Amino acid sequence: MIPNFLTIIPSLIAVQDAAEPTEVEAAVAAINGDMGMLWMLISALLVFFMQAGFTLVETGMTRSKNAANIAMKNLLDICVGSLTYWFVGYSLMYGDTSNGWFFWSGIMQGEGADLLFQTMFAATAATIVSGAIAGRTKYSTYAIFSIVMTALIYPIAGGWQWQGSGWLTELGFIDFAGSSIVHSVGGWAALVAAYMVGPRIGKFVDGKVKAIPGHNQILATLGVFILWLGWFGFNGGSQLAWGGDDAIAASNVVLITNLAAGAGGLGALITTWIWYGKPNLPQTLNGALAGLVSITAGCGNMSTVGAVFAGLIGGIIVVFSIEIIEKKLKIDDAIGAASVHGVAGVWGTLVIGLWGIDGDTGIGLFNGGGFGQLGTQAIGALAYGVWAITLSFIILKILKSTMGLRVSEEEELVGLDLSEHGEIAYPGKRER
Amino acid sequence: MIPNFLTIIPSLIAVQDAAEPTEVEAAVAAINGDMGMLWMLISALLVFFMQAGFTLVETGMTRSKNAANIAMKNLLDICVGSLTYWFVGYSLMYGDTSNGWFFWSGIMQGEGADLLFQTMFAATAATIVSGAIAGRTKYSTYAIFSIVMTALIYPIAGGWQWQGSGWLTELGFIDFAGSSIVHSVGGWAALVAAYMVGPRIGKFVDGKVKAIPGHNQILATLGVFILWLGWFGFNGGSQLAWGGDDAIAASNVVLITNLAAGAGGLGALITTWIWYGKPNLPQTLNGALAGLVSITAGCGNMSTVGAVFAGLIGGIIVVFSIEIIEKKLKIDDAIGAASVHGVAGVWGTLVIGLWGIDGDTGIGLFNGGGFGQLGTQAIGALAYGVWAITLSFIILKILKSTMGLRVSEEEELVGLDLSEHGEIAYPGKRER
Amino acid sequence: MIPNFLTIIPSLIAVQDAAEPTEVEAAVAAINGDMGMLWMLISALLVFFMQAGFTLVETGMTRSKNAANIAMKNLLDICVGSLTYWFVGYSLMYGDTSNGWFFWSGIMQGEGADLLFQTMFAATAATIVSGAIAGRTKYSTYAIFSIVMTALIYPIAGGWQWQGSGWLTELGFIDFAGSSIVHSVGGWAALVAAYMVGPRIGKFVDGKVKAIPGHNQILATLGVFILWLGWFGFNGGSQLAWGGDDAIAASNVVLITNLAAGAGGLGALITTWIWYGKPNLPQTLNGALAGLVSITAGCGNMSTVGAVFAGLIGGIIVVFSIEIIEKKLKIDDAIGAASVHGVAGVWGTLVIGLWGIDGDTGIGLFNGGGFGQLGTQAIGALAYGVWAITLSFIILKILKSTMGLRVSEEEELVGLDLSEHGEIAYPGKRER
Repeated sequence: MIPNFLTIIPSLIAVQDAAEPTEVEAAVAAINGDMGMLWMLISALLVFFMQAGFTLVETGMTRSKNAANIAMKNLLDICVGSLTYWFVGYSLMYGDTSNGWFFWSGIMQGEGADLLFQTMFAATAATIVSGAIAGRTKYSTYAIFSIVMTALIYPIAGGWQWQGSGWLTELGFIDFAGSSIVHSVGGWAALVAAYMVGPRIGKFVDGKVKAIPGHNQILATLGVFILWLGWFGFNGGSQLAWGGDDAIAASNVVLITNLAAGAGGLGALITTWIWYGKPNLPQTLNGALAGLVSITAGCGNMSTVGAVFAGLIGGIIVVFSIEIIEKKLKIDDAIGAASVHGVAGVWGTLVIGLWGIDGDTGIGLFNGGGFGQLGTQAIGALAYGVWAITLSFIILKILKSTMGLRVSEEEELVGLDLSEHGEIAYPGKRER
Repeated sequence: MIPNFLTIIPSLIAVQDAAEPTEVEAAVAAINGDMGMLWMLISALLVFFMQAGFTLVETGMTRSKNAANIAMKNLLDICVGSLTYWFVGYSLMYGDTSNGWFFWSGIMQGEGADLLFQTMFAATAATIVSGAIAGRTKYSTYAIFSIVMTALIYPIAGGWQWQGSGWLTELGFIDFAGSSIVHSVGGWAALVAAYMVGPRIGKFVDGKVKAIPGHNQILATLGVFILWLGWFGFNGGSQLAWGGDDAIAASNVVLITNLAAGAGGLGALITTWIWYGKPNLPQTLNGALAGLVSITAGCGNMSTVGAVFAGLIGGIIVVFSIEIIEKKLKIDDAIGAASVHGVAGVWGTLVIGLWGIDGDTGIGLFNGGGFGQLGTQAIGALAYGVWAITLSFIILKILKSTMGLRVSEEEELVGLDLSEHGEIAYPGKRER
Repeated sequence: MIPNFLTIIPSLIAVQDAAEPTEVEAAVAAINGDMGMLWMLISALLVFFMQAGFTLVETGMTRSKNAANIAMKNLLDICVGSLTYWFVGYSLMYGDTSNGWFFWSGIMQGEGADLLFQTMFAATAATIVSGAIAGRTKYSTYAIFSIVMTALIYPIAGGWQWQGSGWLTELGFIDFAGSSIVHSVGGWAALVAAYMVGPRIGKFVDGKVKAIPGHNQILATLGVFILWLGWFGFNGGSQLAWGGDDAIAASNVVLITNLAAGAGGLGALITTWIWYGKPNLPQTLNGALAGLVSITAGCGNMSTVGAVFAGLIGGIIVVFSIEIIEKKLKIDDAIGAASVHGVAGVWGTLVIGLWGIDGDTGIGLFNGGGFGQLGTQAIGALAYGVWAITLSFIILKILKSTMGLRVSEEEELVGLDLSEHGEIAYPGKRER
């Protein structure tokens, strides 16, 4: 759970007031606060580094003639996201005035480590979209969409749960680090965008689906390792504290995050070995990422064994999901972002209702509470899906009828690097 | 020295019981524990990132037609290793029931940061093997070997020293972060595997050794920088604590790790400049890694000057070792893993007996103790060599006569990417 | 401000002596010291990783036939720099005997985390030069220059401000993390070196400037992400402490570092969009780096809004500076190092005198003090420029008349990888 870091300081003070702390207790509380800030800052840096991971995964899994364009999109996400989220997004997400879903109390700026950590989450949500629509989208249009994503779509939705008194928090919804709030929001926006922009030329020919393999699987692999590393901060930092029980809790969050990632990679590896006849690299990479997404909501509410199975199933699901979106829905999601972040994000949200446990007591959550935790999780997952799909659709519809979403056929064929940026990524080499 | 993190907590409590700590002492002990956990977790993350470094070094130093296969092997190591070491390896290494070399007290799960840190060491030992046998080994066979390595070969051997009451600990053996325990075990297994799998087609032709240069030295360089970075956690995290003397000790461990790496790189650079006539990039990369391996055992028992010379000599040795293994022993170790991890690992273990110092008193260890520290170090290095070579030989012999170790000649020539995984790493480019 | 870490320990003790600290105060001071050491060590690791970033930016932005040479230069910088700065540079920078600009009290070795942190700064100053003179400089000559840079040029200049009683400190100069001390010193040395080595063959033909695009913009992009990440340690670690106010201050330093980087990237992106007609990737990368350099001096003396504008303007300036140095001055700075580090470094130093604030009181520094802060900043920036240009010129003049600076025309055309190192970076591919 990521409530605003600042909101817990008053409660700390309140506790101290109540108990009239000794000199030692006050010193320990201050030091625990400092250690928590250090852990959050380090986590923020790890999540920042995920931007490099996304860039590598997205360029590696697409063609070389669009590589510089993808780099420019990812740079835009972090440059623009850092400014818009600082200027307005943070206030929309953690502001005080509230009707349960829309928070705002004027422009406010949080404490450094916390604001940076939250900024990186916003940039992550935006950057998920960039890969899905690779190879045919106008850069100027993408820039507008990226601004709207980090300034409005993500922050408003994030506040529902992480502001601390949003309607989903009140409902008992659990999403520790954002399977739904970050990943499925990004994933659903990616799916809508891929649908509205339309498929790349040559993807669907005469009713047949053609594979357009990426140009550099080693860069993609490096990208997944960087994402995996960054995820330790993404999930572990969401503990928002270090010291005493929090140190042990955050360590365990990181441990089970790793277990789920390993199980996810293995799940996809084995699935493709059985299905395709050979263990497949791109799908194994997607499987590891899906394993990570699958544990992001539940990493504070899962046993180690539960995490392994959450990740394993996430890694299996993603292989089928990618095939279905491509071959049945005929949507050209260039790198499988909707499956990795959207579908696995929903799975990661729901699994808490199946074999999640209470972090303190260890008691299973299945059928706990009135409506059942599974029902609550389903409501939250649905709400984020409806929000992301609706808002993305409206924004993209407006952009389509004004600026246009797509480059010309000629520009697409020559590649976006040359047509949109005037330079290619690998001068001296043949492009394709 | 890496005893189980948990074993030091009871001793801490024991100390507290003895002295009846004041409120302040108890608070300081708790905070030191929390800071230690933070440092171990960060170190675990750095060691995790070494997997990316290994992937880049191994792919960069071999041909492009096998690059995806190497990525798949490294992914397998971390995916499988995370699960097997958690499920059984950790118990085998740190279990309580003991006859001095085989520990087991049922499946147990350590504290998050510690288990994760130890897991990454196991995955490192396994991944060292993958590079040596690049380009001709069956993926399915490698998968079995990787499981055995992380579940059995490494954990049993690791317990001898790091469980805390193993026979090498009792003997006075010193291996702070694993020159022998991790690197030489991995290196010897790599040598045996390279020998048993046999050389790549075209490596030894008519009695002549032919160079098969890697396809991307820049990726290899990036990989070495990542490994160097990760090693700061590998060695520094092996302090297992932070706070008071431990903070200073761990900082110094990291400092001398860097000095040894720099000296190792320089040693190889100068050696090749004199020998080959030109300073050689791949050997300089190997030299930096050899410098790191050379200080891994002694980083808690070495002066800064001692570390520089340990690393420098390690960097020189590795150049000769690679030439000898290739040209005299006619073993095709595709990336020099046996030299970098095995030979430099033995050197790093022995050098403690030459100019190592007692970490507390600063007194030289040479000829200290009854048998002499050098003798003790030699026994340890030998024991790990015999263990790794014997076990690897047996396992690979069994695998050879059942599944087979090697792909067909045709599959090797077309490249393992296509034959084992059905996809190439760089679609759109000519493979070689 | 980076005074020697050790110099603050006595002052801490002094404070304690004065007030006769309670047991709790003493414990808190010790723990704060330990947390500070942890933060500095982590920061040192981040700054180390910048070496990988520089390698990627410099190779990616130049041609493939010189890529291995650049990797070898960057490896040399960190290998040699780690040894020379430890052996002599640190003493020259932080020694006690002083006439205000030259410090020395015999070889001394600092505490681990501090020495490592400072070492990485020295290596950074050296490595800035390597990119500017890519593609035509003799490796042996560069090696000598790298030694002189890390052992003499940088340490002596660094002491003026960071030793704690240097003449610039006395003057009231502000350079928190080294816009002038590290980046402009490196940048000016790079400019002098590029001028003295002369342009690459084919750069200026018949009075016309020809573009020589780099060979891999994706590696360059990854390099910028790594540098951006490392800069959080570069600037944040320069707080030299963690705990209490320092934790908040360091967090804010990191936050505004990120804002300035984002604004710098955006500044260059928009500038090229307007000027070139299309948003340009290499310039956006340079803009983000310029944004980082622009906030390096003032990250402890700037509001968030001030940081955004410092970075934004830095990102705009760099685009014009690169064009002017290339087209007006006709100096072939292969990657724009003089603009990114030198020009933006001066800008970052001066901006403190324009809208910098006192870190404690928040009061604006403009026209504050007798001579005015802007005047003081100008003196410091000028002093570092004069020092770096003069020393670099003298050293390179001596090297030119003895060893020679430049490879032969034939060697340059075939590429430095083959001529200087006997191997190419990408065997199996066509070089250019």
